[in-house]
Amino acid sequence: MPRLVMKFGGTSVATVERIRNVARHVAREVRAGYEVAVVVSAMSGKTNELVAWCRDASPLYAQSEYDAVVASGEQVTSGLLAIVLSEMGIRARSWQGWQIPIETTDQHGSARIQGIDGARLDAGFRRGEVAVVAGFQGIHPASGRLTTLGRGGSDTSAVAVAAAIGAERCDIYTDVDGVYTTDPRVVTRARRLERVAFEEMLEMASLGAKVLQVRSVELAMVHRVPTTVRSSFDDPDDARPGTLICDEDDIVEQQIITGIAFSKDEAQITLRRVKDKPGIAAAIFGPLADANINVDMIIQVVSGDASTTDMTFTVPAGDYERARAILDAQAGIVEFERIEGATDVVKISAIGVGMRSHAGVAAKAFRALAEKGINIRAITTSEIKFSVLIDAAYTELAVRTLHSLYGLDKA
Amino acid sequence: MPRLVMKFGGTSVATVERIRNVARHVAREVRAGYEVAVVVSAMSGKTNELVAWCRDASPLYAQSEYDAVVASGEQVTSGLLAIVLSEMGIRARSWQGWQIPIETTDQHGSARIQGIDGARLDAGFRRGEVAVVAGFQGIHPASGRLTTLGRGGSDTSAVAVAAAIGAERCDIYTDVDGVYTTDPRVVTRARRLERVAFEEMLEMASLGAKVLQVRSVELAMVHRVPTTVRSSFDDPDDARPGTLICDEDDIVEQQIITGIAFSKDEAQITLRRVKDKPGIAAAIFGPLADANINVDMIIQVVSGDASTTDMTFTVPAGDYERARAILDAQAGIVEFERIEGATDVVKISAIGVGMRSHAGVAAKAFRALAEKGINIRAITTSEIKFSVLIDAAYTELAVRTLHSLYGLDKA
Repeated sequence: MPRLVMKFGGTSVATVERIRNVARHVAREVRAGYEVAVVVSAMSGKTNELVAWCRDASPLYAQSEYDAVVASGEQVTSGLLAIVLSEMGIRARSWQGWQIPIETTDQHGSARIQGIDGARLDAGFRRGEVAVVAGFQGIHPASGRLTTLGRGGSDTSAVAVAAAIGAERCDIYTDVDGVYTTDPRVVTRARRLERVAFEEMLEMASLGAKVLQVRSVELAMVHRVPTTVRSSFDDPDDARPGTLICDEDDIVEQQIITGIAFSKDEAQITLRRVKDKPGIAAAIFGPLADANINVDMIIQVVSGDASTTDMTFTVPAGDYERARAILDAQAGIVEFERIEGATDVVKISAIGVGMRSHAGVAAKAFRALAEKGINIRAITTSEIKFSVLIDAAYTELAVRTLHSLYGLDKA
Repeated sequence: MPRLVMKFGGTSVATVERIRNVARHVAREVRAGYEVAVVVSAMSGKTNELVAWCRDASPLYAQSEYDAVVASGEQVTSGLLAIVLSEMGIRARSWQGWQIPIETTDQHGSARIQGIDGARLDAGFRRGEVAVVAGFQGIHPASGRLTTLGRGGSDTSAVAVAAAIGAERCDIYTDVDGVYTTDPRVVTRARRLERVAFEEMLEMASLGAKVLQVRSVELAMVHRVPTTVRSSFDDPDDARPGTLICDEDDIVEQQIITGIAFSKDEAQITLRRVKDKPGIAAAIFGPLADANINVDMIIQVVSGDASTTDMTFTVPAGDYERARAILDAQAGIVEFERIEGATDVVKISAIGVGMRSHAGVAAKAFRALAEKGINIRAITTSEIKFSVLIDAAYTELAVRTLHSLYGLDKA
């Protein structure tokens, strides 16, 4: 029999009544002839409550104990869904991460899945059981301790289970009905995508689209697990298919640009009139790297007299103050006139595997933005995307302009 | 180093603040030189919340899934206490039942402990760690599934862990400061006992004293684990020792009667003018036993003409209606004139190992109750206790009378 993984997030299992609705989605797929593994998150709000207790217990709590506390949330949901399924006449049993086992590294709080043994789940399928798997959690085999996977970890659990049991597909049920060409709250003409390539989805997730966590997309791409994003709030007997994330080759009518993402989580730092000498870049960026600050866009402009240079780059908004303090401390080693900074900036990205085979895609965007009077502060490009940094005030205008420019508006 | 088990119930760990207080009790014993295992219950109210969700999910929930859901409560507390201990500079780690493992039968919801492997806890002690053990839960080894031990299970976990690690003592911290000669709410002159014998405690627990669950006392008696009942609300730096439950031989000045217990959870049933013939007792009590109704006191009085008999016995109050219905259904087989019943009755028991070596202890009580005009409906006796069934209206008078009679009143 074909196998299917279905994943439901916290809002979809927030109450016993909603868990009943989840069970109806599962029942539909069981009737359709699938062997089903369901991966569930904690009831929404529960994880926050558990995290708050840990912080209250000690701001410096051990991550290993945090994992023991927080993993309990998914344990509860898995048991409740198994009960509801049984009541509907569907054989089911709950599986904790350690029972399968889902083996992870020992980086408590943000462990990575190392391997999943599918043998016990296989035996369950042979008994005709739906496997209800607690998401987000695993076990570190050497220590025998509970681990959790970090934010969005249940998506990663779902994709990993799908790969382990050879599922035909992994359906991620969430509170949106698919992946859009851009944020529909910003662009009313945003369209839901029927299909999107793994690599495009990976870029979208990295660049600010909140639908799926980056790691789950990476895993789906590596293991070639067709994954959908679809709504858990659809009528279970009339559910829409959502957006399929799949191999590039499985997308027949490929657009040049598939989506426009934007991230306000950016800050710009400019060092004016830096005395240019060998090793200057290392002197600036080395200490930032040591402090785990991720520098993204970098632009260097040589000034008129050629002995100094202006250096502009971006860091995550949350690291802005820390980055400035580090650079101030480097003032003795790096000679510059002054530091300037801006936090009211936004990074806008256009993504599409079609860029590989089409020239001049980004240039078209630079012209269109210039025509609207939007000043570009920085640019980065890669094989399948380009990003521009602009003033945050122009976010909506810029996103709408690019969305129309690349033919993404819905009719 | 000597070892100690400390157990804290739901009210003692109801909030993070109270967990901090628990940690201070633990710190005191660590400073005193003990290797400590702490057994914790779920935060009070949490288990009820989890049980309510299971019932809401399905009134016919599978006990195995109930166990997965409910065991999460102790998991949370164990992690939080480990965090708080670490913050206080005390090395600690949490242990779930399956991690130790605490192996149980597969009677989900009321599993019995089969064995505890102390090796991993030993290794933890060698690392200088306090072991924080989630109470109430275990694992069924063959299925690998979570189990729970039923009501009061954490007390049983604590005693079993104490036996497994060879602890010098098991301290049960609770919301009372020890075991009393009787309920202090009924008799203001009730005294806290310094020591009580295992067998006496077992009878007291069976006969209505709510301090400890019967199974934990049985286990302590079998494994000869000296166990105390003491208050978790004492100042951790000035905590009273509570009551020690120990071997009879360790009690120097043994009283004849140690305590007076009473239970209102009783109902009386009388069958009038039962036609006496061989097998009549089996016809009455067989169906009750089949229905798992526990018949306690039985009195048979032959009537004047010797061909019929009046049969009186007690059942738990909660089974009263069911018992009457079963007997009504037997009316064709057992010939009797009518059934009478009473639920406003109380069973009062006097317990003391000293009864073994003293004659006439019970007879003294019957006289004293008669002098107060209290009618005795039924009597049972055993080696170390006797019980009388009386009208509930006389509860306080009877308990006070016996309490004074056997010299238990405090000065």
